Amino acid sequence: MTATAAFRRLALDPAAQDLLFREARTATAFDSEAVDDDQVRAIYELVKYAPTSMNQQPMRIVLLRSEETRRELMSHLDRGNRPKTASAPLVALLAADLGFHERLPEVFPHLPYAKDLFADAAVRRESALFNTALQVAYFIVGVRAAGLAAGPIVGYDADGINKTFFGDGTREIVTVVNIGRPAREPDHPRLPRLPFHDVVTTA
Amino acid sequence: MTATAAFRRLALDPAAQDLLFREARTATAFDSEAVDDDQVRAIYELVKYAPTSMNQQPMRIVLLRSEETRRELMSHLDRGNRPKTASAPLVALLAADLGFHERLPEVFPHLPYAKDLFADAAVRRESALFNTALQVAYFIVGVRAAGLAAGPIVGYDADGINKTFFGDGTREIVTVVNIGRPAREPDHPRLPRLPFHDVVTTA
Repeated sequence: MTATAAFRRLALDPAAQDLLFREARTATAFDSEAVDDDQVRAIYELVKYAPTSMNQQPMRIVLLRSEETRRELMSHLDRGNRPKTASAPLVALLAADLGFHERLPEVFPHLPYAKDLFADAAVRRESALFNTALQVAYFIVGVRAAGLAAGPIVGYDADGINKTFFGDGTREIVTVVNIGRPAREPDHPRLPRLPFHDVVTTA
Repeated sequence: MTATAAFRRLALDPAAQDLLFREARTATAFDSEAVDDDQVRAIYELVKYAPTSMNQQPMRIVLLRSEETRRELMSHLDRGNRPKTASAPLVALLAADLGFHERLPEVFPHLPYAKDLFADAAVRRESALFNTALQVAYFIVGVRAAGLAAGPIVGYDADGINKTFFGDGTREIVTVVNIGRPAREPDHPRLPRLPFHDVVTTA
């Protein structure tokens, strides 16, 4: 089967396939059109349904709306990433809540001792980082679902961001995401993806 | 704005929103209809386009198609997860390739020294686990895009799975995913999701 024939086997509408995956590109420069809180709300209210282990939902989002917080973030970014973030109408910090287990009695109520499974800080952190990464991916898909482009960035001084924004140590930065409408077509063609047979094997 | 009004602001078609997020549920029991390699190919050829940092694409998938490998996996699963996997027509191991950096000259060709950034094994592992988690999330969305249900599982003896399936230490299990058509409606209503204002704040 060719790749094109494969696409036709999906239940998802081809236009949605394009919007979320095939035509979506990571954005590195944005136009000035604002991204408002209602758009972020629309994204969250969709992607919140995607699964995390034991429904942990550890991801927390901080929208940087003030000049001061934008400037503070900028100083912690790798130099090459600064122009990208400078041009983004909205910049979000996606962080892991290391105290997510406190919400388990509410979000995983049928297992009353769920919270106790995460009493150990190292176990808790590992689970928070893994499930936040899942939610970062869902969020990126959600940004695209809103007709916007995402520019996820991990090139920064994480300790610096954590000290500035999460000084009490209860949260940890996982990804900075620039959000908006792309200013122009991407500078370079899409980077190569690994071929199916290099990724998927049978045992 | 109400949550319902928020949905209407998305560019993604409402039917696609339902298919991927709102009506999709984690499956714990499956019917016997097979999931063939062409379906997995269709999923991969779609979700491969979703972004990873520096285009690392560290996720590797092993489809367990033989009775022997299915039985071997079963012995490493937490007891409560075994019936779920036993009923799944297809079970996939989603693993992190700890040697992903060897492919960087091919998938991130404009930065010739990219591979050297991951010379340190701990740095490399952290990046592999993070980016594999992103790809696990994209894959789950892709399974749903194929009209199937995913049942991701992390309750298992990871060391046991790694020894059995990745004995050379170059890969590490991240998630087991059961794939198929759900046998019935889920046993319980959807678990609660955290409210918007508990997750998204402004600074």
